[in-house]
Order: sequence, then structure tokens, then C-alpha cells
Amino acid sequence: MTFNELRKDYLLNRWVIITTERAKRPTDFATKRAESGEGKICPFCPGNEKLTPPATLLYVKAGHGVKKDRDFDGKRRSDWRIRVIPNLYPALRPPNKDEIRNLSGPYERMSAIGLHEVVVESPNHNEHPGVANIEQLKLTFEAIRDRVETISTYDYVKYVSIFRNHGKEAGASLSHAHSQIIATPMVPKLILDELDASARFNKEKKGCAFCSIIEKESHSPRLIYQNSHFTAFASWAGIHPFEFWIIPQKHQSSILDISRNQIEALAKAVHSCFGALKKILNDPPYCFTFHIAPTCGKYNFYHWHIEVYPSLSVFAGFEKGTGIYINTVIPEKAALSLRRAILKL
Amino acid sequence: MTFNELRKDYLLNRWVIITTERAKRPTDFATKRAESGEGKICPFCPGNEKLTPPATLLYVKAGHGVKKDRDFDGKRRSDWRIRVIPNLYPALRPPNKDEIRNLSGPYERMSAIGLHEVVVESPNHNEHPGVANIEQLKLTFEAIRDRVETISTYDYVKYVSIFRNHGKEAGASLSHAHSQIIATPMVPKLILDELDASARFNKEKKGCAFCSIIEKESHSPRLIYQNSHFTAFASWAGIHPFEFWIIPQKHQSSILDISRNQIEALAKAVHSCFGALKKILNDPPYCFTFHIAPTCGKYNFYHWHIEVYPSLSVFAGFEKGTGIYINTVIPEKAALSLRRAILKL
Repeated sequence: MTFNELRKDYLLNRWVIITTERAKRPTDFATKRAESGEGKICPFCPGNEKLTPPATLLYVKAGHGVKKDRDFDGKRRSDWRIRVIPNLYPALRPPNKDEIRNLSGPYERMSAIGLHEVVVESPNHNEHPGVANIEQLKLTFEAIRDRVETISTYDYVKYVSIFRNHGKEAGASLSHAHSQIIATPMVPKLILDELDASARFNKEKKGCAFCSIIEKESHSPRLIYQNSHFTAFASWAGIHPFEFWIIPQKHQSSILDISRNQIEALAKAVHSCFGALKKILNDPPYCFTFHIAPTCGKYNFYHWHIEVYPSLSVFAGFEKGTGIYINTVIPEKAALSLRRAILKL
Repeated sequence: MTFNELRKDYLLNRWVIITTERAKRPTDFATKRAESGEGKICPFCPGNEKLTPPATLLYVKAGHGVKKDRDFDGKRRSDWRIRVIPNLYPALRPPNKDEIRNLSGPYERMSAIGLHEVVVESPNHNEHPGVANIEQLKLTFEAIRDRVETISTYDYVKYVSIFRNHGKEAGASLSHAHSQIIATPMVPKLILDELDASARFNKEKKGCAFCSIIEKESHSPRLIYQNSHFTAFASWAGIHPFEFWIIPQKHQSSILDISRNQIEALAKAVHSCFGALKKILNDPPYCFTFHIAPTCGKYNFYHWHIEVYPSLSVFAGFEKGTGIYINTVIPEKAALSLRRAILKL
């Protein structure tokens, strides 16, 4: 029996057509994996530090643990556990007075200022979230929090986007486990829309929109995973097949507020959910992005979270021309598969 | 020398980072073409009409010209010039009382009602816009106008999305020249945003936002093509490499208003622009979509147009998590290449 339904996002004015009708089409899922560039020299593997710029943050081995190396300028030591470096091909760069150009009309524009960094998540090339050890994952999230904290202090930064692309189809140009950070000089439209909607909810219902979502989804067929601090669920109106969110149960507006205990719980949640995703879909390409409060202004009503977008379908003319999406996998069914896979990990 | 700039869309609150920095990366452009399924039986080629549902509109040969066949129900004649058929795997379907289900909470949803049709643009499998003869292209746009006119009268339809996907990377599952029509039961978000912005412009400046854009772009380095009725230009803040728009010079809100002379001019504009695109980028995958006024309500201030999105890059974690895009091709350079290629066609 086919399933057809239009669903609206929790907060955004964004509709998705959930239909199993089109799932019959042979081309709905990407089946061929693009080559991953293995065999070439990996600039993110230890020993190849000279191929990338000096780090902006290094966690290095210290006895049985790690410590932050505060003296990494220009040095490219290779005994690191986490290495954060400027992206060699930055989308946005810190302002430089020498290159300020006249940016008058005819339409609105500004200099492409900001920051673009790479978080190398492990010395091990293949230590991806679904297979990484928990200690290493904790270091990754700690490093991200660390960098966001520093970058937030720069006066030209209004938002810090943290994301991970896995697989060529999902935009990854290198296969070594890594995330990226792009700091932008404006609050992005998607975040503005979420802020507007959650501020409206807050005003009308005197509470947090996301706290209310967590409460409902914890008891819904969309629930995937839950531990003492984090909940993962297939989003009600997810626009990607197998889309899911990972969200802290405690109300906090940014990853900057995360505690040590929460970091451990986040690492476990990510490990389980991505392990399950890898298992049931044969290591599919995916992106995930943190949604956090902007670094400018007060956004206590906002609730940070991670959204995971498996790259299993193509957004084409209809999606790009309307902003309405087609998803051929029912979120409740995706959640069931992921839930079962987690039990068997 | 690298080029880096942030540009905001003419109307939308949508930013794009235009940067040649990242164009150095080898993975920025899709280089491998997916197989096109040639060799299999094409359900859109003449003689195979039984593989698809009965047509909803047929233009058939009549002497040296064509006529509309008003008696095609159940018939699947093969002497057609244009054939419009229901999509075999529809994203949305007309309402059917038997299948109305209870669609209560916990979040907003509705039945997936609407329409989904395929416009087979020619009996010739490969008669794509850039190589089609002008007479056939005119029939295509006439048929689209025809169908939009009929579909607009259905009370469950609020918007009609017309689009074309070319190449597997752009979402096309069949390679026979065809466009698609999806009628939706709500006005899509992207169109709502354009309507809001152009209504605001209309109120503030007492004119049409798009007429003003045409006036400016006709004398800009982004101009690509112009004939007596249509102007094509690389959009100021296009989010796709080589993105361009084709727009009627006359102020009209929908393709429903198009005249016979305009249809001929549109066919010529499309033929030239897509011929150039095919030539300079080796027949790249692309989508194009019509942006027209909704079928419900009065939107005289709106100005319909076509937006063309070559599928040459991957939107990944950053784009999906922020709504900010990265374009590695400067619109002015794209326009120059296309302009030159048109001269040599």
C-alpha cells in the first residue's frame, strides 16, 4: 500500500511530500559510490602536516591523556589527537584592510569575510563517527566547542556554522574523518527562520518549541535513541530519506553551554546513530550540521541541536523551484530501521 | 587573482558566497556522467504509448500543422507531436474521497493532493531545448500554457510548478526530452517569498521589481541574450555555477498571459541559451523552473520568468544547514562565456 502525505516542518514554513509511490522508481537512491580518492597522499594524516596550514587548535598526547598545545604557531607536530586548521580553499576569510574593495550597487553585496576551518577528527584516516572510539569523539566535540568559543569573540562574526560532509555525493573532497567550521558575517536565513519561529512559539506558549518537540518525540514512533542527555528522532517532516535530529534534553541555546557529561553523552548518541546509519544503508553519504544560536545578540529561547541529512536523493527542478521537497521514506519507518540497527550494534 | 564576494539575491533574503578560491579544488565540478539508460525501451517514444497512462493533452499532426486532439481518452495514438500524460509515479494526486484519512496532529499535515504530469516535448528522443527545432519548442510552450490553463481551474490547486530536469545528476530518470508539471495545494514557500518581496518593492517604489531588474541587467555585464520579447541574463546572486534567468520584457504575472509572438520569441531564447550551455559545458545536467503567479488570488504585481540551474556542484552541509550558498563561477564570467557561445552557434 502506498503512503502519501504532506507534512509541514515543526517550525519552518517548509512542506514535504512523503510518498512511497515514487520509491518504486529505480533511480530514487544513489547506488553507485564515487571513488574516494584513496591511494593519494592524505593531507590530514599524521606526518603530512606540511601539506596544510599551521593549526589553529591542537590537542596533543600527554601521558595517558591529551592537552591543548598552546604553542603551535608555525609548528606542525605530528603527535596530535585533534588538529584544527584553516581550510586551504576558504569560502570566507578574515578581513584584510588591504583588500577592501568598493562594493557599491547595483544590488546588495559585501566582502566575503569570515572564517573557514577544518577539524581533523582523528589521526586515524577512517575514524568516522559511526566507528570511532568514544574518547576520540569526545575530543572532537570538545575541540569544536573550543573553536566556536574563540571564533565567537571575533567582531566580524555573527554566526558559526559547524558541519560534516561524508562521501563525495555529500560534498566531501577528502575522505579522512573531518568536520568543518564556517563563520559568517550575517545570521543565515535558515537560522533566522528558526529563531523567528521559536521566538513566536516562546511568546505564545511560554516555553521552548524544541523542548516541546523533544517531549512529544520521546513518546512517538519517530524516536531512535535516547540516553541521559540526548534524544535522537526521525524528524516529523524531514526532507531527506532517513533524516534525523540529535538534541540535548536540557534547554541550552548553543554548544557553548555543553557540559563535560553532556559531551560524553553526545559522543555516545552520535556513535550509536551513525553506526546504525552506516549498517543499514551501507555507509551512505551524508551531511550533518549543528544549529546553534548566533554569536551576536541574546537568543536564550533557542535550543541547539544537530540535523543529519543522508544524501540519498537528488533535489531537482521541483524542489529548487518551490522549496517543497519530496521524501520517499516515511520517517516512522526510517526510525524503526535505525532503532533496530542500534540494538544489534 | 581570486575573486571573493558575498551577494544578496535581488529579492530574497538569500546570500551567496561567490569565490573562485574554491574553484581550484578538483571536485568542484561533476565530471563523470552517469549512464543515461539508453538501450532500454523508452516509454516516451512513439509506438510505446501503452507503457504510459492515457494522455491529458495531445497535439497531433494535421496536414502541415498540428491540432489538439480532443478525443484522446483511452486512446494512445502514436502520430502525436506533443504528448502530456499523468506521471506514472506521481508525487501528488487528485483528491479521491475514498482515501481521505484522518490527518490530526501532533503537527501540521494534509493529504498529498495535487497533480503530476509529464510533457513529452517531441516524438524525437533527443530533441532537447538546445538542439530542438523552433517549431517543436513553440509547441512545447503552447502545451505547457494549455495545461496550466486547465489545471488552474481545479479548486484544489493553488500553484502550478513547471520544471525540467536534464541528466541523472539533475534528477532526470528518463532521457527522452520532457518537462514536468506538479500542481500543489499550497503556494510554495519560495514563491511566497518572491511574492512578498515584489509586493514590498511595488508598494515602496510604485513599480515592478522584475521590470527594474530587466532594465538594469539589459545594460550589465551579466546580459546573455535579448530578442524582441525576452531577456536572458546571469543572475546577480545566482547560487548555481552558470545560473541564468529568461524573462519576458513585457510585464505579465504568468505564462497564461503569453501571446503567440512571445511564444516564438521564448522558443528562440531558450534554443540559443541552452544551445550555448550545451556547447560550453559539454551538455551538462541542469534543471529549469518556471516561476509564475499562483492560480489563487490576484498577483498582478508579479512578473513570471524561467530560472535555469546547471547541476555542476553539490549543495552540502553548509548550504543545507544555513541557506547560504557557495558559487565558484562569477556570474559576469558565466555570462561572457554564454554570450560568446551564442554568437558562434
